Amino acid sequence: MAAELSDFRSDTVTRPSDAMRAAMAKAEVGDDVLDGDPTVRRLEEAGAQFLGKAHALFVPSGTMANQIAVGVWTRPGDEVILESEAHILRWEAGGLGANHGVQAVTPIGDDHGSLARTAVEALIRPDFVHCPRTGLLCLEQTHMGTGGRVQPLEALEGAALGARDKGVRVHLDGARLANAVVASGISAARWAQTFDSVSICLSKGLGAPVGSLVAGDEDFIEGARWQRKRLGGWMRQAGIIAAAGLMALEQNVERLAEDHALAAQLAAGFDAIDGLSSPVSEVETNIVLVRVDHPELSAVEVADRFGSHGVRVMALGAGTLRFVTHMDLASADVERAIRAAQSIFG
Amino acid sequence: MAAELSDFRSDTVTRPSDAMRAAMAKAEVGDDVLDGDPTVRRLEEAGAQFLGKAHALFVPSGTMANQIAVGVWTRPGDEVILESEAHILRWEAGGLGANHGVQAVTPIGDDHGSLARTAVEALIRPDFVHCPRTGLLCLEQTHMGTGGRVQPLEALEGAALGARDKGVRVHLDGARLANAVVASGISAARWAQTFDSVSICLSKGLGAPVGSLVAGDEDFIEGARWQRKRLGGWMRQAGIIAAAGLMALEQNVERLAEDHALAAQLAAGFDAIDGLSSPVSEVETNIVLVRVDHPELSAVEVADRFGSHGVRVMALGAGTLRFVTHMDLASADVERAIRAAQSIFG
Amino acid sequence: MAAELSDFRSDTVTRPSDAMRAAMAKAEVGDDVLDGDPTVRRLEEAGAQFLGKAHALFVPSGTMANQIAVGVWTRPGDEVILESEAHILRWEAGGLGANHGVQAVTPIGDDHGSLARTAVEALIRPDFVHCPRTGLLCLEQTHMGTGGRVQPLEALEGAALGARDKGVRVHLDGARLANAVVASGISAARWAQTFDSVSICLSKGLGAPVGSLVAGDEDFIEGARWQRKRLGGWMRQAGIIAAAGLMALEQNVERLAEDHALAAQLAAGFDAIDGLSSPVSEVETNIVLVRVDHPELSAVEVADRFGSHGVRVMALGAGTLRFVTHMDLASADVERAIRAAQSIFG
Amino acid sequence: MAAELSDFRSDTVTRPSDAMRAAMAKAEVGDDVLDGDPTVRRLEEAGAQFLGKAHALFVPSGTMANQIAVGVWTRPGDEVILESEAHILRWEAGGLGANHGVQAVTPIGDDHGSLARTAVEALIRPDFVHCPRTGLLCLEQTHMGTGGRVQPLEALEGAALGARDKGVRVHLDGARLANAVVASGISAARWAQTFDSVSICLSKGLGAPVGSLVAGDEDFIEGARWQRKRLGGWMRQAGIIAAAGLMALEQNVERLAEDHALAAQLAAGFDAIDGLSSPVSEVETNIVLVRVDHPELSAVEVADRFGSHGVRVMALGAGTLRFVTHMDLASADVERAIRAAQSIFG
Repeated sequence: MAAELSDFRSDTVTRPSDAMRAAMAKAEVGDDVLDGDPTVRRLEEAGAQFLGKAHALFVPSGTMANQIAVGVWTRPGDEVILESEAHILRWEAGGLGANHGVQAVTPIGDDHGSLARTAVEALIRPDFVHCPRTGLLCLEQTHMGTGGRVQPLEALEGAALGARDKGVRVHLDGARLANAVVASGISAARWAQTFDSVSICLSKGLGAPVGSLVAGDEDFIEGARWQRKRLGGWMRQAGIIAAAGLMALEQNVERLAEDHALAAQLAAGFDAIDGLSSPVSEVETNIVLVRVDHPELSAVEVADRFGSHGVRVMALGAGTLRFVTHMDLASADVERAIRAAQSIFG
Repeated sequence: MAAELSDFRSDTVTRPSDAMRAAMAKAEVGDDVLDGDPTVRRLEEAGAQFLGKAHALFVPSGTMANQIAVGVWTRPGDEVILESEAHILRWEAGGLGANHGVQAVTPIGDDHGSLARTAVEALIRPDFVHCPRTGLLCLEQTHMGTGGRVQPLEALEGAALGARDKGVRVHLDGARLANAVVASGISAARWAQTFDSVSICLSKGLGAPVGSLVAGDEDFIEGARWQRKRLGGWMRQAGIIAAAGLMALEQNVERLAEDHALAAQLAAGFDAIDGLSSPVSEVETNIVLVRVDHPELSAVEVADRFGSHGVRVMALGAGTLRFVTHMDLASADVERAIRAAQSIFG
Repeated sequence: MAAELSDFRSDTVTRPSDAMRAAMAKAEVGDDVLDGDPTVRRLEEAGAQFLGKAHALFVPSGTMANQIAVGVWTRPGDEVILESEAHILRWEAGGLGANHGVQAVTPIGDDHGSLARTAVEALIRPDFVHCPRTGLLCLEQTHMGTGGRVQPLEALEGAALGARDKGVRVHLDGARLANAVVASGISAARWAQTFDSVSICLSKGLGAPVGSLVAGDEDFIEGARWQRKRLGGWMRQAGIIAAAGLMALEQNVERLAEDHALAAQLAAGFDAIDGLSSPVSEVETNIVLVRVDHPELSAVEVADRFGSHGVRVMALGAGTLRFVTHMDLASADVERAIRAAQSIFG
Repeated sequence: MAAELSDFRSDTVTRPSDAMRAAMAKAEVGDDVLDGDPTVRRLEEAGAQFLGKAHALFVPSGTMANQIAVGVWTRPGDEVILESEAHILRWEAGGLGANHGVQAVTPIGDDHGSLARTAVEALIRPDFVHCPRTGLLCLEQTHMGTGGRVQPLEALEGAALGARDKGVRVHLDGARLANAVVASGISAARWAQTFDSVSICLSKGLGAPVGSLVAGDEDFIEGARWQRKRLGGWMRQAGIIAAAGLMALEQNVERLAEDHALAAQLAAGFDAIDGLSSPVSEVETNIVLVRVDHPELSAVEVADRFGSHGVRVMALGAGTLRFVTHMDLASADVERAIRAAQSIFG
């Protein structure tokens, strides 16, 4: 059954299920700042295991998870290598500079958002008092800017090793890493293996209401605790929301396959319509970038028309719409979206 | 009935009541980052009204609430005037410098933590290219460093006006402002009236599991939204925890009088014991600073002895214990603490 | 006559002439921090006129001149657009982040180092709380990374206007702007006209021992004074070195044509040698990038061989040498360099 | 013979002597950024020896010397302990926060500007994730805020050791350390012995036009070079001004005794006048703080009256004038100042 409104804007819009609400209502809690909250602890242990790291830390947002990692690995005056569409560069309000005093260098990735190992190596600055120190390489999996593409393991690791082998730390922004796990059959721990730290969001496709994890080894976590404290992200009886995160991590990873199937269904439907282009071969997870070529309407106007059919969607720039599938959407929502498209472009 | 353990360490240890858990379980939620979460909105409106400001913002911690205010009112190179025991100075991990690039000047307050208006005025730097710009005065009510004393309205406002009349912004760290409201009979809005911004914690005496509010006028909130975003404090379906905060704000302010009564009872009991000093006249809210003079034991060791009687308490420095009362403690806990003291000092 | 050593490493190696030394010895001075130094004032006035701005400020280095401009136009959390080879990005020790809390976005320019107007426009972030604010575009003339090429006026202004028309400030790093003036016949004021601020170095081709100027309107200079103070660049009786700067600016601009002629002579000589490539058509000012293809030697080793012929030169990366001409070199030095090359590649 | 104007505002107003100008005119120079400037090298070696440290660095100002030291010893989030009148706190434009992301704690010193060892110890924060890390203690000798008083060696070292013994670095702002050397008979190296780094100004009482030194061990200097680069303080053929600094350091230390004698003469003359108070016993070096009690005139107005007698002086706050003696003043200037005072207060 389609929702009242079919909201394809983002996988962050999911509402907690009844089971998740029940888990939160009965969560065991403690003062996490004083003694540790037992449910937060359980979530952090499950997260660390999932990500294949010694420790994980629960934080209020994906932005904070990434900002913590940048803070642990860099010092002011450093430079961070980031693909030009990276979330950390474009969607974290300038936190690189404001929170950490680091600048960026922003190469352009390929159609999966991957950077060539040689490109990474060429950007690492010499150890010279006049140059910024290259402090960190951040990669993103799945890669939002290319529509949730899964960077091939070899490409992702090649870029990471290009940095690591020159002594530069590497962080994986894994906000949607679970989608890559399901799409690739490669475990999160394997994806994160080459990285010094990794983040994952519990409130995107996994469906928890609030929170992310950032993981690494013991040294990382000690630094991360200070970063979380000074950014203001240490919460008291956070077991309430951690209970939902724990359920998300334990129960909602494999079901992402359904979101991916819906995305493929949507892409196929749209691609068959004159004026829309969304090759199914480019849809690897739960995001569909749809190129729009309407004789009279801009992408923003097309998005508005979708709205009048009960379908909410984001316009990205002049000619692209972004549809994201998630657990609060079903096949009926996809059908409604395709019917709406047929009407708009009919 | 006394709790299994009587935990006097902080009013942050309270666990959500059954009613609060029920409210969280059925909270209406939305994606606060996209459309706004309706429960968060209700909490922010209730908070703004309580604090007498145009707007309030829900954030994950008291530290973030204060750090946001510092960020909105200052720019790098500014100086902030802070009483020497201020939470923002001592307990926020150096966020002043790390988050905002501002230094501090740290005068010593009186026995209520108050700064004289003339002292504030004397610290405001001349408008001169060689000097830091005095960007902000932060005051704290109740004042934790003096044991939760309530700064008299005239003193608090005098200091604030000393700054404002010279064009310097003023922020009130009201983590425990609700305690001052109950102790003084003066409304929160009245306390906050002279201030450009004010914060309040929902997870201390008010008993919510997570969260704080920071409030001010329209311009403040616009800046505050950016600060919250870049610090990583913007949460998605935060209505879950906001529901608890709303209940805390609506139902748990007046009952702080019970905590204050317990604190007075505790102080009276301790002060009657040789080796302990805690004049009731110095206990104005829910914190009791107890000076310890034991022939053999340091304050830390005395705290350990309390522990073996099932009474948890913090040692502050060499000769002082801090007891904090809250909604998870009752008269029986106070009696147990007094009996424990009699045994230790008997 | 060739110098004892022919030093082609940089135009920063020039030593003050006897006339310049005499001018310094008799310079009228004052305490610039208290009342203003009269010679510094004269230099700043001459510099402002040369650059077509209301005011100029004397500072100890080109790095400080640029860093001051970045500091005036940005606030923490901003993003600065910089061509990927920009001095401010690569050779200022990460000052963007460390001094100002700003990140960068680093598009790749064309063979003159120019950015297309559309490329600049596409990089300006939307006014949205999640994005960094695009605070500044910095361009560089001449462009060191491409070998001192002169960006065409139309290209330079097109990029600048792409930013300005969207409300983004523009700064011109004119460390070698005087070379562009001489090469193009376009005045410095005209080059700087579209820019909110502009810097120029007195200690490169112009031959002064120490110092740079940064210029802009009244508001800019007020901010620049504070930046200079907090960075520690305000000097007392700086008239001594300003006297040399004044002579450099008044007497040494037009003679840069000689350096450019030497560079062309050098490029022609090298380009005729098998294994060296340095098309004269690419040499527009005083820098010659020479691609090296030696059967056995790397560029670094070739540079060493030049050294043993009394010719000092820098290797840039694996296959390129950089030769820079300046007032302490003459035709005989160029001939020595060509002879050395013939010997090495003979 | 008195100067045309007797300028008692600061010892920074001195103009280079003819001999100093001659030394600058014939200084051997090089590109300090590339190969090192030989005169800068000689100055740095002489400075290191004078200060008893392994290395010294030449920088454009006393502010930069201090800011470099703060930068080397701290990281963002740290706290620096500074006496409430410290130059680094009050007169360096907020560089602590803006340049380094550190906050301050600002105890009040005694009548020599000294901090008790116990006071320092009490301010060092516990090693706890919630607290700022105490990164540095800065002391100042002579202490400008108390009128150039010489902190007793025992007091200075006691405070320094209070920090060092707890693992906190200590920096000595020795802008006028040479005055303390002459007044005490204790060598600069001995004064600096307990400190990790020390700065000294060449352009105050020592009479050079431009520049300061900052000294420490090898690790310090490596960090200091980066700080100097990123702040923009690395100069090219700086041997010109270093030549004056070298002469200042070699020839002008002992003659500071004359400045001290003039200051004592001035204090005695003023103290004998009704309405002025400047006990000779409080004058230890070249600064005289004169308390003013005029029936009708404020200190600012009294300073203006001095001006109309050809005597320039600074008013500090409401009731104090500051007179500073230096090498461009003689006994006749002091006599003129006393006559002027007699006339104003007659």
